[in-house]
Amino acid sequence: MVVRLYDLCGRDRDLRFSPYCWRARFALAHKGVVPETVPTPFGAIREIEGGAFRTVPVLVDNGERIGDSFEIALHLEATRPGAPTLFGSEGIVAAARFLEGWAVAHLHPVIGRIIIMPIHDLIDVADQAYFRQSREARYGVTLEAFTTGADAEREALARALAPLRHALARHEWLGGPSPLFTDYIVLGSLMWLYTIHGELPLAPDDPVLNWFERGLDLHGGLARQATSAGAR
Amino acid sequence: MVVRLYDLCGRDRDLRFSPYCWRARFALAHKGVVPETVPTPFGAIREIEGGAFRTVPVLVDNGERIGDSFEIALHLEATRPGAPTLFGSEGIVAAARFLEGWAVAHLHPVIGRIIIMPIHDLIDVADQAYFRQSREARYGVTLEAFTTGADAEREALARALAPLRHALARHEWLGGPSPLFTDYIVLGSLMWLYTIHGELPLAPDDPVLNWFERGLDLHGGLARQATSAGAR
Repeated sequence: MVVRLYDLCGRDRDLRFSPYCWRARFALAHKGVVPETVPTPFGAIREIEGGAFRTVPVLVDNGERIGDSFEIALHLEATRPGAPTLFGSEGIVAAARFLEGWAVAHLHPVIGRIIIMPIHDLIDVADQAYFRQSREARYGVTLEAFTTGADAEREALARALAPLRHALARHEWLGGPSPLFTDYIVLGSLMWLYTIHGELPLAPDDPVLNWFERGLDLHGGLARQATSAGAR
Repeated sequence: MVVRLYDLCGRDRDLRFSPYCWRARFALAHKGVVPETVPTPFGAIREIEGGAFRTVPVLVDNGERIGDSFEIALHLEATRPGAPTLFGSEGIVAAARFLEGWAVAHLHPVIGRIIIMPIHDLIDVADQAYFRQSREARYGVTLEAFTTGADAEREALARALAPLRHALARHEWLGGPSPLFTDYIVLGSLMWLYTIHGELPLAPDDPVLNWFERGLDLHGGLARQATSAGAR
């Protein structure tokens, strides 16, 4: 059974920085699935599987094509009931949707102000005009004006992560005793920051850092190999 | 078996506005427990059960005393395993902690800017000095400067609730097919706003409003009776 994941990449094909692709990669690893990953620069997304998709990740699983990281997680849960669960209950699916909405609305803007300009500089030169235009339309300002950098956003990042810190004060994982897709949503968002910026600009004693380090070690260190160091 | 809940009240003893007390009341009703509620103004909190508590809610359950709304929910879950679950899995407990942290860090400040001054005006005159001093210390400005009102906060409130709206686009409840403590956390926060302000300043077609209305109807309309109309 061929399982293929189209995974966003930078000019260096080994730089995999999409938060949504990371969510899918964690979910696949959680289910014990080792996909063939296809490094996909922005400009190649429209060519995926005949042109049916506008975003990555895209999973091709035994002939079925699924876009969107959350849909991929639900698909894996439905098709691999014997492997460890990604959710455990429908209540967690709904809570995970809350987390997905929180990440987009309240975490990604803060991370974006740190890394949008660096991302622009690390992607295919041919994709930079598209990237600039689409992001400047989204944020309503130039990339240069939107990007404030890690020093300026340090406090905002710590503040944005307060709910996660509150949960991790009492639980080893956001999923409780072991990681669930709820963890992978936030780990994916932070992998976006980590792969581009090279570190998480958080206080050394922040429990979020400890949890993130444990996240890097999951599934044979899947995410640990992906620091930006090698990519730059 | 005597079950008693100390519940924050205003100068009008029927005005019950604490978000944390509402979480506890929803959780008790969810478990089919009808407590004797003791209306407790701020000034009487230190007299509860011999003075062991500094905040409400406080639950006295068959001789055991439990403070803190989340601890009360965990206690009810542990002592009433036969009644409908408030969580369903440890993963939901952890996700609910995330929601608890999110409400305090990101939702309550917005609601506070709408209702802190009105709360001041609705509590016992004898409690107003304490209330002003403690809240002004917390926010670092006078109540008058902190309060901006519903019109000014309308957009911020809609934006703060984006993660909830995202989940409710796909699920009837934050708990999935039926309400869980995750719902009661956010319902409690919004009851704080609703009981003091008399309505939720959201667009009429906001799915959050529909969910909130269904929340008011839960458990025999427990929360619907508590509009501020009667209390003012």
